Amino acid sequence: MSEHSASAGNVAAEGRAAPIELYTYYRSSAAYRVRIALNLKALAYEAIPVHLLRGGGEQRQAAHLARHPLGLVPVLHTDEGWFTQSLAIIEWLDEAHPSPALLPADRAARARVRAIAQAIACDIHPLNNLRVLQYLANELGVDEARKNAWCRHWVDIGLAGVERMLAEDPRTGRFCHGDAPTLADCCLVPQVFNARRVGARLDDKPTIARIVQACEALDAFRHAAPANQPDAE
Amino acid sequence: MSEHSASAGNVAAEGRAAPIELYTYYRSSAAYRVRIALNLKALAYEAIPVHLLRGGGEQRQAAHLARHPLGLVPVLHTDEGWFTQSLAIIEWLDEAHPSPALLPADRAARARVRAIAQAIACDIHPLNNLRVLQYLANELGVDEARKNAWCRHWVDIGLAGVERMLAEDPRTGRFCHGDAPTLADCCLVPQVFNARRVGARLDDKPTIARIVQACEALDAFRHAAPANQPDAE
Repeated sequence: MSEHSASAGNVAAEGRAAPIELYTYYRSSAAYRVRIALNLKALAYEAIPVHLLRGGGEQRQAAHLARHPLGLVPVLHTDEGWFTQSLAIIEWLDEAHPSPALLPADRAARARVRAIAQAIACDIHPLNNLRVLQYLANELGVDEARKNAWCRHWVDIGLAGVERMLAEDPRTGRFCHGDAPTLADCCLVPQVFNARRVGARLDDKPTIARIVQACEALDAFRHAAPANQPDAE
Repeated sequence: MSEHSASAGNVAAEGRAAPIELYTYYRSSAAYRVRIALNLKALAYEAIPVHLLRGGGEQRQAAHLARHPLGLVPVLHTDEGWFTQSLAIIEWLDEAHPSPALLPADRAARARVRAIAQAIACDIHPLNNLRVLQYLANELGVDEARKNAWCRHWVDIGLAGVERMLAEDPRTGRFCHGDAPTLADCCLVPQVFNARRVGARLDDKPTIARIVQACEALDAFRHAAPANQPDAE
């Protein structure tokens, strides 16, 4: 059991014996989202690292492809089965372990939270994924400077859109939606971590900056950060 | 009201006056998903075209940015508000208009359907989006042949993964999950439409081919196809 399990004691006390296993990589944005959700729900889990760079990528080896045919992390293994895709995993967690809720009760609000999450998960993050950057470099001969400009471009225009979704909507509170963290915050914080890495502008996105600061004040987010993972380098 | 409204009469008969408006582009894969979902639920809607290529892209003009800060289609407008992101829109439709259900009742099954949908919506489609291909050509000087190879690469490895998710799981039926169409089929059919356009291999993906054939036998899918839209060129 990883030392990052938020509450192994609590879970044992509730009598749930089957451990949750998370196949993860410390710097994967998608795995980071699921780590935050697990921590927010105080669910103990075993972190099983899959190294995306070692040996040509452990995620492309047969052992991992048996868990996830697309060769990606995260994968969650529970007593209900194997789950892939970070947003689908978090929705499952929210249905299987409803408290605290990561989606609002009202369906229009739920659609808003999902839309913010998907703006990040569908329209920003996939373009800066490791395998995409490897293709740009190896197949298209894109040099480091233009590769970084590519990353900054998608992060900048994507987060500028998310900033407007947040700043212009009265439903935004201390967090992306209201005053408690949701699925949207689980996606925003890892994306901002990536934005800082690639040197994208954040000073012109004050709502995002304020919300991320509120998130990073919470242990659930801090303990999920890449630097605090057992496989961090 | 578009002639593609599946059942304007039914909706009027039920006394729901507020029309559903869909901001759409005939060739947008994400809009295509929502059109299928609306048709499966026999919901009448007004199709309002947003031309992604005309005038530098109508989706980037102020009128559309007011609807969707990221400047993308689809956008759905209903009496409950404005909704963006195709998967969030379809989940909202499923909650607001539960029959026929596009997600299974069992939560592990629901997670599987969402994972198939997201494998397409997060790991395949974003890489072949129009704006990405424009960046490859305009900013990185990637020629037509290498741009097409890029498209085929992501579609081919992505759909190969989806094929395994479908072929190796006994829960796959006539459709992606069981014997009725779900959110996963709403995503698969538009992705296969794109795959054909870029000349990706499909002959080595027999489960996908079989399911798409079953989908395309249904009016809900046929009426949603790009060629059958009012803005088709």
